[in-house]
Amino acid sequence: MLYFDINEYKDRIKKTKKRMETEGIDVLFISQPANMNYLTGYDGWSFYVHQGVIVSLDKEDSIWVGRAMDANGAKITTFLKDEDIRGYDDNYVQSKTKHPMQFVADIIKEKGWDNKTIAVEMDQFYFTHRCYLELKKALPKATFKDGNLLVNMVRMIKSEKEIEFMKKAGGIAVKVMQAAIDSVNIGVRECDTAANISYAQIKGTEEYGGDYPAIVPLIMAGERTSTPHLTWSDRKFENNEAVLLELSGVYKHYHAPIARTIYLGTPPKIMRETADVVTNGLAKTLEFIKPGVTCEEVEAKWRDAISHSTVVKESRLGYSIGLNYPPDWGEQTISLRPGDKTILQPNMTLHLIPGIWYKEVGFEVDASIKITENGYESLYNFPMGLFIK
Amino acid sequence: MLYFDINEYKDRIKKTKKRMETEGIDVLFISQPANMNYLTGYDGWSFYVHQGVIVSLDKEDSIWVGRAMDANGAKITTFLKDEDIRGYDDNYVQSKTKHPMQFVADIIKEKGWDNKTIAVEMDQFYFTHRCYLELKKALPKATFKDGNLLVNMVRMIKSEKEIEFMKKAGGIAVKVMQAAIDSVNIGVRECDTAANISYAQIKGTEEYGGDYPAIVPLIMAGERTSTPHLTWSDRKFENNEAVLLELSGVYKHYHAPIARTIYLGTPPKIMRETADVVTNGLAKTLEFIKPGVTCEEVEAKWRDAISHSTVVKESRLGYSIGLNYPPDWGEQTISLRPGDKTILQPNMTLHLIPGIWYKEVGFEVDASIKITENGYESLYNFPMGLFIK
Repeated sequence: MLYFDINEYKDRIKKTKKRMETEGIDVLFISQPANMNYLTGYDGWSFYVHQGVIVSLDKEDSIWVGRAMDANGAKITTFLKDEDIRGYDDNYVQSKTKHPMQFVADIIKEKGWDNKTIAVEMDQFYFTHRCYLELKKALPKATFKDGNLLVNMVRMIKSEKEIEFMKKAGGIAVKVMQAAIDSVNIGVRECDTAANISYAQIKGTEEYGGDYPAIVPLIMAGERTSTPHLTWSDRKFENNEAVLLELSGVYKHYHAPIARTIYLGTPPKIMRETADVVTNGLAKTLEFIKPGVTCEEVEAKWRDAISHSTVVKESRLGYSIGLNYPPDWGEQTISLRPGDKTILQPNMTLHLIPGIWYKEVGFEVDASIKITENGYESLYNFPMGLFIK
Repeated sequence: MLYFDINEYKDRIKKTKKRMETEGIDVLFISQPANMNYLTGYDGWSFYVHQGVIVSLDKEDSIWVGRAMDANGAKITTFLKDEDIRGYDDNYVQSKTKHPMQFVADIIKEKGWDNKTIAVEMDQFYFTHRCYLELKKALPKATFKDGNLLVNMVRMIKSEKEIEFMKKAGGIAVKVMQAAIDSVNIGVRECDTAANISYAQIKGTEEYGGDYPAIVPLIMAGERTSTPHLTWSDRKFENNEAVLLELSGVYKHYHAPIARTIYLGTPPKIMRETADVVTNGLAKTLEFIKPGVTCEEVEAKWRDAISHSTVVKESRLGYSIGLNYPPDWGEQTISLRPGDKTILQPNMTLHLIPGIWYKEVGFEVDASIKITENGYESLYNFPMGLFIK
């Protein structure tokens, strides 16, 4: 059931342990679902209860900890030994008297790690403040450190097999956006378009199935084009309105986001001009991308490319993508914006999304790319610019 | 754009403030997305960055705090005044030097609340340990308290309008499960069934559209029926295997979960017997449900009803449901299990899910109900028992 060869997982753990050593961390407790999947293969929608993976420098294999009913899921989806799959009793779940981190602390004590330096993901969702309090209380001899983004940083550069997965996601992305464009029409309910999009995302292609996206289809029409991140209602699309679509193809939790804009009717001048400026600006920015340039240089190139226009983009231009679970397909590591001096390297994968949201209307287009030896390669090919229907 | 009358939101805030007073809380910072929606109407997929709602006893209206690009979304979906919608600059997002909670702390200082008793949701996802550290650091004069589940407790008893929403979700649930049962067949890919399910969830009915579920379709077939919480692959359903489906109908984020089990081929004896025991046990448990009984009494009734059999259910029988966002449609307040002495009251809404997962095979059936004046009412009607195809 493993999505990757076992040696690929072992290599990921090796890289993780190397970072742990550098940062003086003996034991790392991982609760971010993508990080758990990345290191062990674990793949279940059980992250609504507390769970995690313990990586220790003095133990070759990691330990999965979760709710007892999910232990079989861990046996099925990971390569871990049964003895390293540790399920807590159901009475720990949302209890007024017990907490799953007490169970995690018991394992840490059992292994003799309770006087070590233990890192937790301090700013990742799925590791709450209470989680920290419980661990701290149960492990008074331990030294706690912040292991936030430690595994995310390892994830930043993809293996060839991961790139293959992301290209498969790209293949799905093309089908997803085509389904969306086919579906959006005057008088069609937003929810019916969203249903078609989701159908295309999950069905995938005839050769391989799709997965659920870490962000549901985002559909903004009419007055809602003044903002990103809204979803659908049962309102019908109207004549003379823009429809912004931020979607993704997904293969085994690897994402290839795709965003386009449709105009129903005759687009106003500001819409056409914005579309031209942004699309050309994105094209120029992409031409500049290659290993060795920094993230902030890429963003500066973009700002330069649109500087002749009235278009203003205040938010970051893009970010690192890959394996993820809800609520975010971004990796939280690098951002294309001033101050980010990360140097682009081959097999980094990025989502460039120059979304513009005015008061009356907005425009979105994007590119999901991998950095190559000499430049970049798109994860999919789909026409850019404004789609007029 | 509000889903409820403004007075319903005001009533929710009144109840929240009453609880705050009782618990000695001056200021409550809410970051759980369902709680944010419940108090303000806010509805966007922006919970992958830090955000929240500040409720203060000395201020009538709450304050929405989030990323600047989402402020328009808050203007569109909430009833808050523009001055109470506060967006932080994009350079706070996933920054190495800044944190959104510094911005939240600035607002708290501006309002003169920094020497008050401030509660945060200490064990809710979306409020990380780092969030706490940043608030604590920026507000040294404040006293911090745990406001975990405070709003969730208010959410426990539904209004008539909320019940109406949940019945609409029930109407969708029936269509969703029928789509699943129609789709599952020998030789069909799991992803194709999942695509049909998701299509039915989002399309809803002709009269009203559906929404995205807080938990994606859970589909366990073959060896995977030994566990809950797994999703689909592109594997094809085979002859002589069980297929467990845990799904939901959703209307404006209100859930009516529905779980059923299909057997492809001739079910083995253990399968038929388990289905009978569990289905009859659930029916007997439901007959017992009425206002005044406790959650643990309901569970005891269930255990009694299956005590003549070999079926063992180690995990809780059910929990409170309603409004929610990923990753969970459960409200985290009440659980049907030993020790939970919550007394059932009219307009509580529960999901009873006696899932059984053996090593070789599993069985799931459920009921989503509301407590009435005299007993209970199902949110939908759908045949129970094992579906044989």
